[in-house]
Amino acid sequence: MIKVGVVGATGYTGEEIVRILAGHPKVKVAHLSAVIEKEESIADIFPSLKGRIDLICTKPDIEATKKECDIVFLALPHRVSMEVAPKLLQAGKLVIDLSADYRLNHDTYKVWYGAEHKDKANIPQAVYGLPELYRDRIKNAKLIANPGCYPTSIILGSAPLIKAGVVDTSYIIADSKSGVTGAGRKADIALSFGEVNENLKAYKANDHQHKPEINKILSDVAAKDVDVIFTPHLIPMNRGILSTIYLKLTKKIDTKDAVEIYKKCYAGTPFARVLEAGRFPCVRDVVMTNYCDIGVKVTGGVAIVVSCIDNLKKGAAGQAVQNMNIMCGFDETEGLL
Amino acid sequence: MIKVGVVGATGYTGEEIVRILAGHPKVKVAHLSAVIEKEESIADIFPSLKGRIDLICTKPDIEATKKECDIVFLALPHRVSMEVAPKLLQAGKLVIDLSADYRLNHDTYKVWYGAEHKDKANIPQAVYGLPELYRDRIKNAKLIANPGCYPTSIILGSAPLIKAGVVDTSYIIADSKSGVTGAGRKADIALSFGEVNENLKAYKANDHQHKPEINKILSDVAAKDVDVIFTPHLIPMNRGILSTIYLKLTKKIDTKDAVEIYKKCYAGTPFARVLEAGRFPCVRDVVMTNYCDIGVKVTGGVAIVVSCIDNLKKGAAGQAVQNMNIMCGFDETEGLL
Amino acid sequence: MIKVGVVGATGYTGEEIVRILAGHPKVKVAHLSAVIEKEESIADIFPSLKGRIDLICTKPDIEATKKECDIVFLALPHRVSMEVAPKLLQAGKLVIDLSADYRLNHDTYKVWYGAEHKDKANIPQAVYGLPELYRDRIKNAKLIANPGCYPTSIILGSAPLIKAGVVDTSYIIADSKSGVTGAGRKADIALSFGEVNENLKAYKANDHQHKPEINKILSDVAAKDVDVIFTPHLIPMNRGILSTIYLKLTKKIDTKDAVEIYKKCYAGTPFARVLEAGRFPCVRDVVMTNYCDIGVKVTGGVAIVVSCIDNLKKGAAGQAVQNMNIMCGFDETEGLL
Amino acid sequence: MIKVGVVGATGYTGEEIVRILAGHPKVKVAHLSAVIEKEESIADIFPSLKGRIDLICTKPDIEATKKECDIVFLALPHRVSMEVAPKLLQAGKLVIDLSADYRLNHDTYKVWYGAEHKDKANIPQAVYGLPELYRDRIKNAKLIANPGCYPTSIILGSAPLIKAGVVDTSYIIADSKSGVTGAGRKADIALSFGEVNENLKAYKANDHQHKPEINKILSDVAAKDVDVIFTPHLIPMNRGILSTIYLKLTKKIDTKDAVEIYKKCYAGTPFARVLEAGRFPCVRDVVMTNYCDIGVKVTGGVAIVVSCIDNLKKGAAGQAVQNMNIMCGFDETEGLL
Repeated sequence: MIKVGVVGATGYTGEEIVRILAGHPKVKVAHLSAVIEKEESIADIFPSLKGRIDLICTKPDIEATKKECDIVFLALPHRVSMEVAPKLLQAGKLVIDLSADYRLNHDTYKVWYGAEHKDKANIPQAVYGLPELYRDRIKNAKLIANPGCYPTSIILGSAPLIKAGVVDTSYIIADSKSGVTGAGRKADIALSFGEVNENLKAYKANDHQHKPEINKILSDVAAKDVDVIFTPHLIPMNRGILSTIYLKLTKKIDTKDAVEIYKKCYAGTPFARVLEAGRFPCVRDVVMTNYCDIGVKVTGGVAIVVSCIDNLKKGAAGQAVQNMNIMCGFDETEGLL
Repeated sequence: MIKVGVVGATGYTGEEIVRILAGHPKVKVAHLSAVIEKEESIADIFPSLKGRIDLICTKPDIEATKKECDIVFLALPHRVSMEVAPKLLQAGKLVIDLSADYRLNHDTYKVWYGAEHKDKANIPQAVYGLPELYRDRIKNAKLIANPGCYPTSIILGSAPLIKAGVVDTSYIIADSKSGVTGAGRKADIALSFGEVNENLKAYKANDHQHKPEINKILSDVAAKDVDVIFTPHLIPMNRGILSTIYLKLTKKIDTKDAVEIYKKCYAGTPFARVLEAGRFPCVRDVVMTNYCDIGVKVTGGVAIVVSCIDNLKKGAAGQAVQNMNIMCGFDETEGLL
Repeated sequence: MIKVGVVGATGYTGEEIVRILAGHPKVKVAHLSAVIEKEESIADIFPSLKGRIDLICTKPDIEATKKECDIVFLALPHRVSMEVAPKLLQAGKLVIDLSADYRLNHDTYKVWYGAEHKDKANIPQAVYGLPELYRDRIKNAKLIANPGCYPTSIILGSAPLIKAGVVDTSYIIADSKSGVTGAGRKADIALSFGEVNENLKAYKANDHQHKPEINKILSDVAAKDVDVIFTPHLIPMNRGILSTIYLKLTKKIDTKDAVEIYKKCYAGTPFARVLEAGRFPCVRDVVMTNYCDIGVKVTGGVAIVVSCIDNLKKGAAGQAVQNMNIMCGFDETEGLL
Repeated sequence: MIKVGVVGATGYTGEEIVRILAGHPKVKVAHLSAVIEKEESIADIFPSLKGRIDLICTKPDIEATKKECDIVFLALPHRVSMEVAPKLLQAGKLVIDLSADYRLNHDTYKVWYGAEHKDKANIPQAVYGLPELYRDRIKNAKLIANPGCYPTSIILGSAPLIKAGVVDTSYIIADSKSGVTGAGRKADIALSFGEVNENLKAYKANDHQHKPEINKILSDVAAKDVDVIFTPHLIPMNRGILSTIYLKLTKKIDTKDAVEIYKKCYAGTPFARVLEAGRFPCVRDVVMTNYCDIGVKVTGGVAIVVSCIDNLKKGAAGQAVQNMNIMCGFDETEGLL
């Protein structure tokens, strides 16, 4: 039984990882920690876990983490992960980091996160944990940079057509809509029910910190520089992201051609589901699952792609466990269906 | 034109008062203040008010308040109102206080709010601002204790039958359901969208600070001590309170008799609407209005009463303006339809 | 591998049963049928099931049902189940009926459902499928009357104190709040988003068809006639029921005593979770699970009990599978964690 | 007092017109009709109107409509308005039609609505009722084609930059998000709470019947053919539309320039509010108002414009009353603040 730990177990993402791991047949949850006022049973913190897992969530204690775990999930804020990860890596642990700390090169990181990276040494070995594109590299990774939620939906939604060379990569528009848990569990008036419910807004238009991550991976896919126009929106629902992506086509293809391109690209992957021509996905069909559903329609020389995920599953905790499964040689879907 | 001010203009209640007063034909909003970081136009704080009112919201300044206003609405937290009200009263201003500070006698206040009252002198002259019961006293009041949202719905829903002497007052149950704005605008994880949406909970069961206020007024109505069992619940919606009240009957009456008792009791009042036998009110029909809709059904010796209000209108700001209208001799509905 | 079928697979309840059974390790879904316009893959009807189950949902065909299944779940409207069940029973199949058809004796049934029962012969052998009360009888049952959602929450919430003989059974009040899926999937303006969202209403006050079911079981528990006052409310959320139950006490006990009574009563049952004194459950902690969470507080001679379930899991499909597990000798939690 | 009538008074739009007119100081609601089962007081149909208006809603009766009204609002489905409008126009009545029947030329109408127009004669005199663009023509109109909700938000959001000649009109993308009442009040599973809540979907991508209306008006503004890419999305909220519009710029301007262009274009109009550079509007600030709030940001050679309205006010009923005010010489904001 592989021993796993979660550092930062009390945010939305941490809670979700614990929930998935509690039902995972191949691992044992051996360590939970978080910045909390008093150490107590995780089932007292999250009553929904009562009867499902019996473990104390401790305050952060890196020595205990090292001692008790083979694999560690870091569900920490950015700039905190980079202080914890190197210690775990040095002790030979596998690390799956859900923050943004290892997703970018250090120059780009500095621009978007406003300060020098503190663990430049480990950035090069970090593997971007999007199995549909990088499964082979994930197999042998020691450190996973688990993708952001918006990037997961946008990259999976646009990579096949870009890879196929049929897209004008100079003008890609990604209009994303996200449920509220994507912003994390925190005391913030802007996230309070009275402000979010019966409301809808765009925010950080083309200025969101996930933009460089999308650009980096899509540039890798396109084999040339890509700079998307990316506008996220906050939607009054708990979970789910739907990204509507507008790809100007450089070759004449129709909807069926496009669907075929997606199907070939994702053949054999268990969680990317491509819908038949004429259908678009919706959030309801992926919520509480690790699936990414994708629909595409070609119209007026443009491919309109709609890509849907659960932001806490495929957009965070589920994908992290999917990465763990690949790293450990388990079935990729173990614990995720 | 009577000059009015709002102290505490940036909470949900304060914002609502400003919105109502901005469209009130008989008054001029002359002063707005709140604990804010910088003084700016109220329309910059609440973009929804852009084009409707042009006034700077200042930091608290009691001298300015006194100078600029004839009537002052205090939309302040409890224990703050009691520091501001006496100064305004002494300056001859009319005060409508939306906090709990003047709703209870000082002994009860101390029990429920945990500290001595700081303005005991003015408690006796405070009039409980529920026009359907105390209109005559409101006319001549200098200081209004504007009712709480739960008490408004429960008292209006139960007073007629209690007054008629047909209720076993030893066992009154009020099960209330409230939208989230009732808790005020604040940074609190418990009020965040992710916690409230798709959720439902009871809280402070029979221990909510509105309980002594309900008891006080219903005891006055019954002319004997009443102690309700009161359980509030938090509902995933922005506005509205629905109280389901269970009144054990001591006399044999049917639903039609009960409806008649309500209709007689509220005849001539513009905002208490009694529904015909067989109908129950719903939140949707009172939201954004100052109405209290009431339906009643007698079954198995019990009157089940359902009473609905908008917590920010009839439950707070709307009722405060209704009180102002009565105090000023305006039509009671002025600015409220 | 036991072969199971679902008749009525396309309603909310049917969909939920299919979803649970698709992940159940001890059974094989062998038959799905429903009144549909064309026979097609269940994954085309519910795209969320794509990749999880590959089976055609056919039109109703009793012969196929008998041939293909060992156990059949009937997720049918009341008055339809009673036409299907006898044929399956006669063929030696185990039947778990999620309608109301076998929950009442035929006289009561006629009063509440307005017509004669068409399968009186099988009513006596039907076992009420609430494992926390009737596990032993469920083990040997051929026909399960799976409980309604409101009754599940109310009976589990009140049975322990009633059984303990400390409750005035002449005046039990159950004030229930339900999410919208409880009303089923149907085209009905009253269930449309625009009517339900930001709204709240009581309906069928003390006149809901689940009332006789609650009365029947609580009378069995109390060993005398019980007639509850029961008011359901419709809440703007998808799933979940929270029942607030007011039990007047006939003996002096405190909250801790009450909690102990619940704990003893539910000791050893996997899905009834009793909360410590001072805590109340909320819908969020049981949604998407088969748990029933219960909290109790004694105040003013009254026990206020709050009982929460997911209406489609413990309130319908999850409980149905729990019953199947018991009937088949599986672990009671198989497929449900 | 001008006498007004509403034909089709019981849909969401009709209800909203009645609500606005009930508080309008310059008109008298003289006639309400709809396809209903029995004629009854509008306040019995919509209990929220109790005490606000006392009028019977009758079954459709064109003779009564002609006799009782000077101005008639048609809140009818498309293809029904075109049968009613000519009779009213012939009788010399002013007609404000909220359906799509008079918004397009008859050839385009046929393509999108699948059948010949039945009142081609009156199409040429219909004036598109968007006051911010066509106020002068509205003044003298006999027949108003009141704009659709999506077109209102998209046209107001993009017209100023297009008119300024700085936009590549060959590739305009409008990604719109709408609350659910935009689809009207009807029994439809796809609009039921259980399907819409906690869900999000795109629909009719680039194939929505509002597309030709947007194209027609933007072509008029651009003085050349414009064909937008338009994707609407259904959002789990009651009211509000937010359109995110991507305009590729042909001239080098910055955000402040863009804001200036909008401000100049809408100077003097009471309901188009242009936000300062750096701010984006949100639905909450326009809900229940007739405002259209617009924010713009220039980034990477693209103007990202966000335009927000209440779909039932500025997107339908409010704009219709605004048109009436202009036609009657009232203040444009009468009854709308």
